[in-house]
Amino acid sequence: MRSQADENHPDLRAALEHLLAAGGKRVRPTLSSLVGNMLGAPLEKLINLGAAVELLHTATLVHDDLIDGSLLRRGTPTLNARWSPPATVLTGDFLFARAAKLAADTDHLPLMKLFSDTLATIVNGELTQMFTSRGLVNRDNYYKRIYAKTASLFEMTSRAAAMVSPASEDTVEAMRDFGYQIGMAFQIVDDILDFNGDQTTVGKPLGSDLLNGLVTLPAIYFAETNPGDPDVLSLPNGGWTNNENMTRLVEKIRSSSCTKKAMSEAEQHVDRALVRLDEFPPCAERDALENLAKYIVDRKI
Amino acid sequence: MRSQADENHPDLRAALEHLLAAGGKRVRPTLSSLVGNMLGAPLEKLINLGAAVELLHTATLVHDDLIDGSLLRRGTPTLNARWSPPATVLTGDFLFARAAKLAADTDHLPLMKLFSDTLATIVNGELTQMFTSRGLVNRDNYYKRIYAKTASLFEMTSRAAAMVSPASEDTVEAMRDFGYQIGMAFQIVDDILDFNGDQTTVGKPLGSDLLNGLVTLPAIYFAETNPGDPDVLSLPNGGWTNNENMTRLVEKIRSSSCTKKAMSEAEQHVDRALVRLDEFPPCAERDALENLAKYIVDRKI
Repeated sequence: MRSQADENHPDLRAALEHLLAAGGKRVRPTLSSLVGNMLGAPLEKLINLGAAVELLHTATLVHDDLIDGSLLRRGTPTLNARWSPPATVLTGDFLFARAAKLAADTDHLPLMKLFSDTLATIVNGELTQMFTSRGLVNRDNYYKRIYAKTASLFEMTSRAAAMVSPASEDTVEAMRDFGYQIGMAFQIVDDILDFNGDQTTVGKPLGSDLLNGLVTLPAIYFAETNPGDPDVLSLPNGGWTNNENMTRLVEKIRSSSCTKKAMSEAEQHVDRALVRLDEFPPCAERDALENLAKYIVDRKI
Repeated sequence: MRSQADENHPDLRAALEHLLAAGGKRVRPTLSSLVGNMLGAPLEKLINLGAAVELLHTATLVHDDLIDGSLLRRGTPTLNARWSPPATVLTGDFLFARAAKLAADTDHLPLMKLFSDTLATIVNGELTQMFTSRGLVNRDNYYKRIYAKTASLFEMTSRAAAMVSPASEDTVEAMRDFGYQIGMAFQIVDDILDFNGDQTTVGKPLGSDLLNGLVTLPAIYFAETNPGDPDVLSLPNGGWTNNENMTRLVEKIRSSSCTKKAMSEAEQHVDRALVRLDEFPPCAERDALENLAKYIVDRKI
């Protein structure tokens, strides 16, 4: 990833260094490496794929943080907190270009198509979210949103790792589903952590999704079981802009069983992912994938 | 190009429609079609390539106009004049994604790598320009800048069209150079039109490059022949921010022979491009490529 800005402008190299130094869990490259190693993919292709996926993810974060005006990510100042908006837009574009180059370096055309399709899905999802009225309580909308935002890239990652391996179509499909399931679980857990995470670890105020009019799974459960709650009723009519009411609603959701119910939904996704591993003979990578899937729901950050 | 936003958010479809309805000269898809048809490329690949190149170009314009705060392009309001910056960033990203998909649909891996390399070149060029001090009179810097900004995409276009054709390596190289030469000419002529174009046709105030601290070829020629001119001397020290002085400098350049000298440099590029056509047997496409190259320097817009 670091080498991708070589021979480019020094400030661009510094920006990439800043972004990479901030770290992150590197869940996506871990996923591609484990799947690919389990299935016997060539190491070089896996390195290109892992770097491509993480850079694509980083590029979307760079533009997201700019769009949301976020100043901190992973406890480190975002690029837009240090750079001008124009430089931030262009750095994101540069990362897209390098991610596409790394994907092309896998020398696998179907992977390249999948890669660009996934980017289109992610961006279309963000645009749809932007144009969808805030405060909307809608389960179908929620699932579509978290698929576009998160699960689509997880799905692509494990599917692509299988595609560059000597694997049957059934295996590719099993790995696609594995990625899809843990991706859905990943975002549901993210949305739960917004309600009950350790505030210093998560790095943003509790309930910040709701305070931004974003109704996630715990809030949807709460709204479905408490349809007459005045704060719930106020949501689609701009009630989410009332800080006091939303802080109260966040507390109500926290003390309800709704985050637990959401967690059990995330665990169901992980269970479906684990079933997909059953068909493979035991090996270190299979164990690690199992641990990765379980980590998705156990993590605190 | 229109079909690329099908099945996506209606506002995104409307944005693409707006961008495509604004037209433009479509020089790049014309170039790829003519080169590919001359060399016997499959029609479908040429359609994908032409649409990919034009969408990539459009995506960079969408982000450029946002960055520069431009409100008009081709006499039509820019996307950022009608949409929020976040929606504009994401629409550009979506166009990158669809351009990459169309490029991948040519089913030609080297083309895909070339495509992502070219995007990186363009974006790195923009970032370099952003971080380079304004008012700099530097010929080497100028050639690098116009290569990254314009010639790299022309070069890629004709080279890619040859790559998907049943053509020898020498032919691919000839077509690469053809695109490079007319691309360099194209940007030099753009820069000349900034000084002597019909203001209503060009659609921006005369000398706007210089008023933005961008020293292009006519100004470089003038600076080289008039090194003691006080306005020239002031340029690297922020003199370009003085509107009155720059308006005077623009007038001096206009009444000098410097735009003519720049034009003769553009014509040399076109001549080098035309030489590249000599090795091909006469045909309708070769004639059209010759006309395209000549149009590059004759155009008024």
